[in-house]
Parts: sequence; structure tokens; C-alpha cells
Amino acid sequence: MAEILSSLRSLMAAHSPPLDALVVPSEDYHQSEYVSARDTRREFVSGFTGSAGLALITKDEARLWTDGRYFLQAEQQLSNEWTLMRMAEDPAVDVWMAENLPEEAAVGVNPWCISADTAHRWESAFAKKKQKLVQTATDIVDEIWKNRPADEANPVVVQPLEFTGCSVAEKLHDLRGKLKASKARGIIITTLDQVAWLFNIRGSDVPYCPVVHAFALVTLNSAFLYVDRRKVSSEVNSYMEENAIEVRDYTAVSSDQLDSTSTINRKPKAETVRNGTTEAEGAGVDLVWVDSSSCSYALYSKLNLEKVFQQQSPLALAKALKNPVELDGLRKSHIRDGAAVVQYLVWLDKQMQDIYGASGYFLEGETDKKKKDLRTTKLTEVTVSDKLESFRASKEHFRGLSFPTISSVGPNAAIIHYGPQPETCAEVDPDKIYLFDSGAQYLDGTTDITRTVHFGVPSTHEKACYTAVLKGHIGLGNARFPNGTNGHTLDILARIPLWKSGLDYRHGTGHGIGSFLFVHEGPHLISFRPSARNVPIQASMTVTDEPGYYEDGNFGIRLENVLVVNEADTKFNFGDKGYLEFEHITWAPYQRKLIDVSLLVPEEIEWLNTYHSRCSEILAPYLNENERSWLSKATEPVTVA
Amino acid sequence: MAEILSSLRSLMAAHSPPLDALVVPSEDYHQSEYVSARDTRREFVSGFTGSAGLALITKDEARLWTDGRYFLQAEQQLSNEWTLMRMAEDPAVDVWMAENLPEEAAVGVNPWCISADTAHRWESAFAKKKQKLVQTATDIVDEIWKNRPADEANPVVVQPLEFTGCSVAEKLHDLRGKLKASKARGIIITTLDQVAWLFNIRGSDVPYCPVVHAFALVTLNSAFLYVDRRKVSSEVNSYMEENAIEVRDYTAVSSDQLDSTSTINRKPKAETVRNGTTEAEGAGVDLVWVDSSSCSYALYSKLNLEKVFQQQSPLALAKALKNPVELDGLRKSHIRDGAAVVQYLVWLDKQMQDIYGASGYFLEGETDKKKKDLRTTKLTEVTVSDKLESFRASKEHFRGLSFPTISSVGPNAAIIHYGPQPETCAEVDPDKIYLFDSGAQYLDGTTDITRTVHFGVPSTHEKACYTAVLKGHIGLGNARFPNGTNGHTLDILARIPLWKSGLDYRHGTGHGIGSFLFVHEGPHLISFRPSARNVPIQASMTVTDEPGYYEDGNFGIRLENVLVVNEADTKFNFGDKGYLEFEHITWAPYQRKLIDVSLLVPEEIEWLNTYHSRCSEILAPYLNENERSWLSKATEPVTVA
Repeated sequence: MAEILSSLRSLMAAHSPPLDALVVPSEDYHQSEYVSARDTRREFVSGFTGSAGLALITKDEARLWTDGRYFLQAEQQLSNEWTLMRMAEDPAVDVWMAENLPEEAAVGVNPWCISADTAHRWESAFAKKKQKLVQTATDIVDEIWKNRPADEANPVVVQPLEFTGCSVAEKLHDLRGKLKASKARGIIITTLDQVAWLFNIRGSDVPYCPVVHAFALVTLNSAFLYVDRRKVSSEVNSYMEENAIEVRDYTAVSSDQLDSTSTINRKPKAETVRNGTTEAEGAGVDLVWVDSSSCSYALYSKLNLEKVFQQQSPLALAKALKNPVELDGLRKSHIRDGAAVVQYLVWLDKQMQDIYGASGYFLEGETDKKKKDLRTTKLTEVTVSDKLESFRASKEHFRGLSFPTISSVGPNAAIIHYGPQPETCAEVDPDKIYLFDSGAQYLDGTTDITRTVHFGVPSTHEKACYTAVLKGHIGLGNARFPNGTNGHTLDILARIPLWKSGLDYRHGTGHGIGSFLFVHEGPHLISFRPSARNVPIQASMTVTDEPGYYEDGNFGIRLENVLVVNEADTKFNFGDKGYLEFEHITWAPYQRKLIDVSLLVPEEIEWLNTYHSRCSEILAPYLNENERSWLSKATEPVTVA
Repeated sequence: MAEILSSLRSLMAAHSPPLDALVVPSEDYHQSEYVSARDTRREFVSGFTGSAGLALITKDEARLWTDGRYFLQAEQQLSNEWTLMRMAEDPAVDVWMAENLPEEAAVGVNPWCISADTAHRWESAFAKKKQKLVQTATDIVDEIWKNRPADEANPVVVQPLEFTGCSVAEKLHDLRGKLKASKARGIIITTLDQVAWLFNIRGSDVPYCPVVHAFALVTLNSAFLYVDRRKVSSEVNSYMEENAIEVRDYTAVSSDQLDSTSTINRKPKAETVRNGTTEAEGAGVDLVWVDSSSCSYALYSKLNLEKVFQQQSPLALAKALKNPVELDGLRKSHIRDGAAVVQYLVWLDKQMQDIYGASGYFLEGETDKKKKDLRTTKLTEVTVSDKLESFRASKEHFRGLSFPTISSVGPNAAIIHYGPQPETCAEVDPDKIYLFDSGAQYLDGTTDITRTVHFGVPSTHEKACYTAVLKGHIGLGNARFPNGTNGHTLDILARIPLWKSGLDYRHGTGHGIGSFLFVHEGPHLISFRPSARNVPIQASMTVTDEPGYYEDGNFGIRLENVLVVNEADTKFNFGDKGYLEFEHITWAPYQRKLIDVSLLVPEEIEWLNTYHSRCSEILAPYLNENERSWLSKATEPVTVA
């Protein structure tokens, strides 16, 4: 590791201009959350494997910024050469750089790996001391990364209409309507899920994300896909031609003049233009729409700013508002996924009893220590999560996991985004809490669920915390609210039962989820931070409901369901705004043993019993007799003593 | 009314430059919410008496903007010449002017009556069409206002330390510390309650507000009070001299060069400088602190902008954080106030039975129609509210009301800030809901309470609504939350029970309250609107808890208590932030008859019963035997059937 830093420092010194600091972000050229192996530069230089973080290397220091989900993990993974910077507690990276780097310092960055917004924010912070953000011509990390994985060439696949529910032609028509309304002549689309969603294509370039490394450019009368041509079969080529989408080299995005009328006004190759308009439109429409929060600094810097219409991409919201076919697919995929989770719990329950002498999922009895000590098989966080994956893999339309499974025992469960590694992970333990947060990609939907269980005797404190988390989970999931309410406003509903006893959690409460796309999807969010973009929660969005509580070195609890936003049939409709409510589409039991029923109010008990009864009913067809009877028992109604 | 508009239009045409429009705001020279009679210019021109609103007169139109609390009242009070503009529904006044007034239009305004922030926002909106905001040299409304009340000359009174808990010297010392920390040499204080609070003085220039029309200027080594000298007795003059405060003419504020070093560096008149520093400080401290949200456009325009430090006045927060003496006074004044409210309810209950044949506060029986029809005495919204005032007036330290009492029967209760007028107000009615929202000024604290009652048979719907409002009131009042939480975040807690059935209300949920000062006090707020200034709720603040529900033409419900923010003794302290909770300091019963107990959860029932039992205990010493027994009955515990 020391070698990597010293090599980087040599290159920084040799750079023209010499760099006082080098920033290595987590993101790829599309500002993705999950990146392909060859794009894990920040992990390569720092050893920290979390999905979010930023490394800064100066002449004599190395610092890594990450958020509350990863504090414990980063502490464990970073070597002594690194200083952990805790986001929301320590100064932000731009503030830190502005204060601590010398006057006129040169800070290098690969401009493809940070967004234009981020770069501009840093540049403002740098102004005071005349520091400079330097766009490096090549990525300095790549230069020293000897075994960097090769360029992938995974095929582009067309996602059929039976799953997308909306043709490319319709999506382009709708998008062009929005361009016209905003007096824009074209739009540059840089995020991978937006490109995939718009053109109804999928791929496998990025682990957990069924997307293709590609950019798109759409104008009022043409559409371009910038992608490695090796990935495009002749069938897919025909599909592109049918849809009047011109395929260009991935690298051409940096040589094409994206904002010039010559590029964006050219006639499409295809003979028939289905939904675009070929007539000369556009008196006064000479702008190119760019979302500077996701467009790379490199690409943004190439544009003529006078021609840029800077605003959130209209595809962010369009993609988030699921159509009925997508909602149907999401519901179905979540039922199959729930069945896999229940099968896993049944299997794990038996293993915990057979191998570890646990009293099991249902009983609160002491563990048979002798059995535990004499065990011949050993189950670890990784081996059990492999088993969970295998149950999912047996389900129709399965296409892999949607993110690295969090499978965590005892203290590891307090590491919010813990990723167990085969060599170092913990063994399961009937005397400790076990938390798993996992999801899968199915052709008809992406899933994400968290459950927390105990196979022995949970402590009174663990039960109280589990119950507080459950109350928050129900409080949010059961809410009704008027149209126009945003996720920040709703966030407190999941925290208020925890706050009663001075508990809280350092992460957001909910994120959108894709339709066989990203597991984290905007533009909405349920978070304690006010959103700059303030997108209200709207009917037909998906959003997770996942409060938690984490006690460092001890245990962690999180409960997560995916919700669909529906119109609520309220008795009244004050203000004529219309009211919304949530539909839970995740199906798996909460562990009754961990619930202190005396802390629940009647409304919560009713919700829980109804959910459990539907859960048992809905999953039954996917389970064998043994699993069904286990689930019946797990979902028996709770009653106040 | 038509005459007023035509006179104004003549003066607008004769003005140099001729005015295309004239803005008449509600505020006085200090941007006050409540203004003295001679400052009610907006009411004079429009006839609308609400506390918030803005009139715009163009060559052929007259429009009045007001907020949701006043829509119904404005509809009733405005003549046909006026168009009501509903804030949050219709375009804001600046947007409307920018769009609807001609290119290069001249918009006149008395620059003392709008804040610098407002003026700047309008000027930005005007830029597009080169419209111009014209500062009129005199107030055009005053020119046509023949019977405008004369200048008041009410005495300045010193508020003793036993009520303020903090001397002027200490307050000045603290303020000067903040000035130094912000590298400011002085501060201009323009809001009346900040001037009164800082110098520990009170007055009676503005109805409901014990303040003096005055400005203050405080520098690192001097302090000035700009006030009509007729108001300053020789005793008060001595007090000012003792505290090294120089008294200047009120009007001198516009001739003094407030940002010049000659003014703000001059040695104070008094021989001894108690807490200021007389040595030459201030290398690099050449700025004058001004709060442009409350400083008038007129005053702000006189300043050299290079010397202005623009930020919220530090006195806003300092005043909101009550000291132990102020908190003690607030608690005591609220007990006396609660006793007056109970005495009023006992009296009203008897009148309703005796005069109107009502079944009364406790029973749900049909009204004796015959008795109602044969009544010889008639009680109206105004006469009963006078009686309420008389109960308050009998209490120690009473110094008048803190705002115009809202006393409203049936449909009038749906008018959120209804102000009954003797000639037009409704008669009380045992078959309709009665809402009263009122408060008083006591030497030791300002109060504000709302209760809603029914003396006959409330409908099931009214009970359901009352219970939903009560649940929101308890949900907020019972919350615990970490330090750093702001009022916008908490607001939803008061609404969520209403939202369940599609109900809501069009006003904020809570405001700070003064210590024998303004009934509405910032800088914090509990509101559905995210606050631009985002001040967290902090220990030792006061804040009201007042959700409601209003059904136009039918009834209105509101419940309001004043809360004090305390540190909470939570079992845990996640994140080491410290947690906060509320202490209710308002004491008066909720009407059990209006509560559908089956809709309450055990926690709510427990809260209600505890509150009621304390209420009865705390108020007993202030009541006679009959009142005590009435209150005992009113506060009997509720139980689930």
C-alpha cells in the first residue's frame, strides 16, 4: 500500500503542473454508485471497499472521506498511512482542501470521474487561496495500476416490452416533448440507468447493475448511443436502426461536438423516423440540456456554456414514475424474492439448531453449548449469504444480485454497509443478532430487503431496539400524506419512536428502486437531510422504508421493505391536493420473538397481523409444505398479553 | 372606498415620476406584525383588517395579497373594486407585478414600510422588463388620510430585573462579544421587540405589544436609543445614562450617518462605561451589522454597502433563548392565564345553559329550544370575549391582551384569524362549535391559548376532527428529538393524524412567544414550509403547538398550548447530540365530550389524563369552590370503553 502512495506521489511531482494533491473519487465516467472492477480506483489506492468514498493524496498525507454507513468498515480497512474523514462530522473535502492545502496549490483529478457540479463547488472553495483544480489528461492511478482488469465487452441486450411497458418510440416522443417545452434542441444523457431505461436496453458491464457503459445524445430529430461497438450484435444493431438510434463509438463522445448544430441537427441514419420530427423546428431552440450533477466535469467542460440548459435530467423523474407493467413486474419479482428469503430463513433456522444447538427462530431457549462446541461444519456470514443467493437463483427471471449482500453477525451488523469477505468474515452465532440486507435483479424488477433475526435469546435491550425500529418502519409505511410532500418531510416518521429513548441512525430512510435497473434510484429520497432538489413523493414511485439502529461493537438492527406509492382513498380531500399512501410489496416475516408487543399501539398490531397474514398467503404457492408450515407459524398474529 | 382609490390614483399620476402602481404594505417603519392605529395604512386603503396583507393599486386595478389564515375574512371585507390574491395559490406579488405591469413601469412604495430583502427581491423580479421600484419621499396614503390618528407619546417604562433576569449591561456585553466575533464595529437594531429586550424597556405604542417606537444603534463602545424624547421621563433618562445609552430623536435615525466611524465611534455621554470597552479596538473591524430581513429599505439604502455585514440579528436568537427568570415568569403567567380561561369556561357554560337552554359543557343533550327562543339577554362573540378579558384583567401583572381575541361561533371558527366586530359578529349558539384563541400580556410573560368547545351535541364528524387535531397536538407536544432538529422537520407530527383521513390546515403549527413582548416571536418556527433561516429548536426556547382543522361555512377547530423546550433525560444518547422534549406550560382542559376516545392510543390517553390531573392541581389555588369542582369534573380521566 505504501508503494502505491509513493508511486502516485512520484507521478504527482512529475506532472505538469506538479500536483500538490490528487483526488481519487469512487465514481466511473458516468458518476455511478457501483462501478466495474477496472473502475475501482479509489479502492485500489486506499484498500477501502465501500461503495462511497473519496481519497485525497497529498505530498505527505492520505485521507479518505466516507459517510456514516462506512465509518467502522473504513476504520478496519484503512492502513496507518490513511486518515479517516467522517462526512457530516469532519470538514467536507473541499473545505478541508481549501483550508489545508497551500496557496496556489494544484489539485489533480481525472475530470471524467467527478461531476461538473462537484468540480464547480470545489473551484469556488479554492478561489480564496488561488488554488487550482487541474484536469489530468490521463488517470494517474491507471498509470501505476499494473493488474488493472481489462476492458469488458459484454453484450447489449434488448429489454422486451413485456417488462418495460413502454416502447423506445414512446419514451423518445415524451422526452422530445419535454425538450421542446424547455426550448432545448437536445439532451446529453450520461448516467447508465437513464441510457438503459430510455433505449430499453440492458447489459452486464457493472456488477449488480444490468447496464451498459454508454452515453446517449437525443435531439428533436435524432438519437445517438455511444457504446463500444463490440457489445452490439447485429440483432441489436437492427433494433437500434428500427428505433432511429445511431450507434457511435463510446470514445467518440469526447471528440464529437455535442452542442454543435452540425452534430445534433444531423438527419438520423434510419430511413423512417418513427416518433421524432424531421421538419426544421427550433426557432429559438438552440440549447443542449445537461444535468451537471451527473455529467462529468470532462464532458461539461467541452460544452459551450452559452448553449447549455442546466437542469436535472427529465429522465430521472420519468424513470422513477413506474408504469403499470413495471409495477406489476416489481410486485411479482418481490413475491419470488420473498419466497427465497423465507426459504433461506427456514434453512438457516434448521442449521442453527442442528449445527449450533440453537433454540431456533421461534423459541427463546438457551443454546446447547456442547453441540455448538462440537460442530463439524462451520457456517460463516459468506457461506450463508451464498445459500441465500442460491435460493434466489432458483427463481424465474433471476439475473444476479442487485448489490453485495450484507450478511452480518453481532457487532458486524453495526457496520451499516458491511461487506463480509470470505477470509475474514465472522461465523454465525445463535447467541447474536444476525442482519441481512440483500436484493436481486430479476428481468421484471429489482429487489432490496432487510431482516434482522435472532436464533437464541435476544436481550431485553435488543428487543426494545428492534421494536422501536419496527415502530418507525410501520410509522412511515403506514403514513398518508398530501401530494407535494417530499421525502425529507416524511423521514421523521421513521425516527420518532427511536428518538423517544435517545436512539437514532446515521443513514437515510428510503431510496427509489429500479425496474431491473439500479437498486438505488432517484430523484426522490427519504432522508433527514433536506434535498436540494426537493422532488415530492409521487404516485407510482417506488421507495424503500428502512430505519435501523446500530450499537458499535455490539449489534445492529435494520428492517427494510420496498413500497409503491399509491393514491389514497381518504374520507376527505382537504385542499383538493389528493392524498397518497404506501403499498408494501416486500414479503417476509418480522421475527415475533424480537418484538416487545407491549410497546406497540393497536394500529401497529393490526398492521403487523394483516401484513403477516397476507405474507403467508402470498408466498404459500412458492413454498414446499415444510416451508409453508414454518411461515404459518412465523406469521401467527401477535396479541397484547 | 372608491374615493380613496381615486384620490390615490390622482396622486400616483401627479407623482414624479408618475407611478403605474402603488404598493401599500401592512408593516410600519419597523416591519412590525401589529402596528399602531396611525400605521394601519393598508387597512385604511382596502378595508381589510387582518394582520398580514399587502395592497397593490394600479391605474385600473386594486389587489390584496394575504395568506390562508385570512382568505375568508378578506373575501368578506374587500369591496368589489378589490381582487383577493391568495398567497401560496396565486402568483406572489413580485411575480404578478413583473408579469402584469407594463415595461419600465414605476412602482411606488414608502421605503420605510418594506424590508430591504423584500425590496431587493422585487427589484430582481422587475429587472426583466426594466420596471422600477420608486421610493416615495412621503407616504402617499398619509397624504389623503384625513383622520389619521395623531402621533402617540406613551411613556417608556423600565422592565425590572426581577422579570428580565438579565441586566442591560450583561446583554450589551454579550452583544458586543458577538459583534467582535463577527468583526463588526456596530449593529443597527430596527425591530421593536429587539430594542425593548436589549435595553429592558417596555412601552405602549403598539396595541397588544408592550413596545416603544424606537431604533437602537450599538457599537463596541457606545449605545444609542432613537426615540421620541417626549416618551422619556427624567427617571428613564437617568436609567439610560446609568447604562451609557445615549437618547437621540427618533427622526435622527434617518439623518445620522449610522455607518460612519464618526457616529459609531463617538464616546458615550455617560462618564462611566460599564461593559463597553473604551480603548481603541477594531483593527479590521469596520463593519456595521444589519439584518436586511427586518431593516427598512429606506434605512438600508442610506448605508454604504461596503461597510455592511448582512446577517440575522444576533438578538433574535438571544431573545428566544429564555433565561431561568423569564421561564419562571412565563410558567407563572400561564398559570394565572389558565385560571382566567377556566373561569371563563365556567361562566360561559352557565350562560349557555341559563340563557340558551344548552345541555352544557359536560352533557350531550338537546338544547331546550323554547328557552333559546325566549332569551332576553343576548351573548355575542364580542361580549363573551370581553368577559374573558375581564377574567384576565383581574389577574396579577395583567397589562392587556397580546393580540385581538379570536372568538368565533360555527362557520366563523373556520376563519382562521377571525376578528369579531361588535356590529356584525355572531351570537353564541349552543348547537355550534365555539373556538377562542386569545392571550394576554403580563409583566412576567406573554400568553397564547386556543380551545374549542361545544355546549350541545357535537356531530360525529366534529368529534372525529377534534380528536384528530388533539392527536396531532399531542403527537408534536410529546415528541423527543435530537439537538439540531428544526421546526420544519417537526411540523408533520401535528399533521399526520389529520392526513390519515385527508384533513389538513393552511397555517403553521408553532411560533415562539415573548417574555412580556411579542406574541409571535422568531427566529424559530414550526411550519410545513422549509425555513430559509433554518434555526433549530433549542433548549429554553418557547414555541406554540397549534394544529387545527377548518371546514369553510361550517366549523373550525384549533387547540393551542405554549411549550418550553427542555433537555430530555433519554435512556440513551445516540450520537452524543443530546435530546430535547417539550414542557406544556399552558393549563386549561380539553373538552372530553369532543374526544372520541376510541381513536386515541394508550400513550395519548396517558398523556391526556396526566395533563388534566396536573391542570386541576395547578389551577386550583386560583379558583373558587364552584370553579374548582367544575374543573375537577372537566379533568376526570378518560378511559377506553
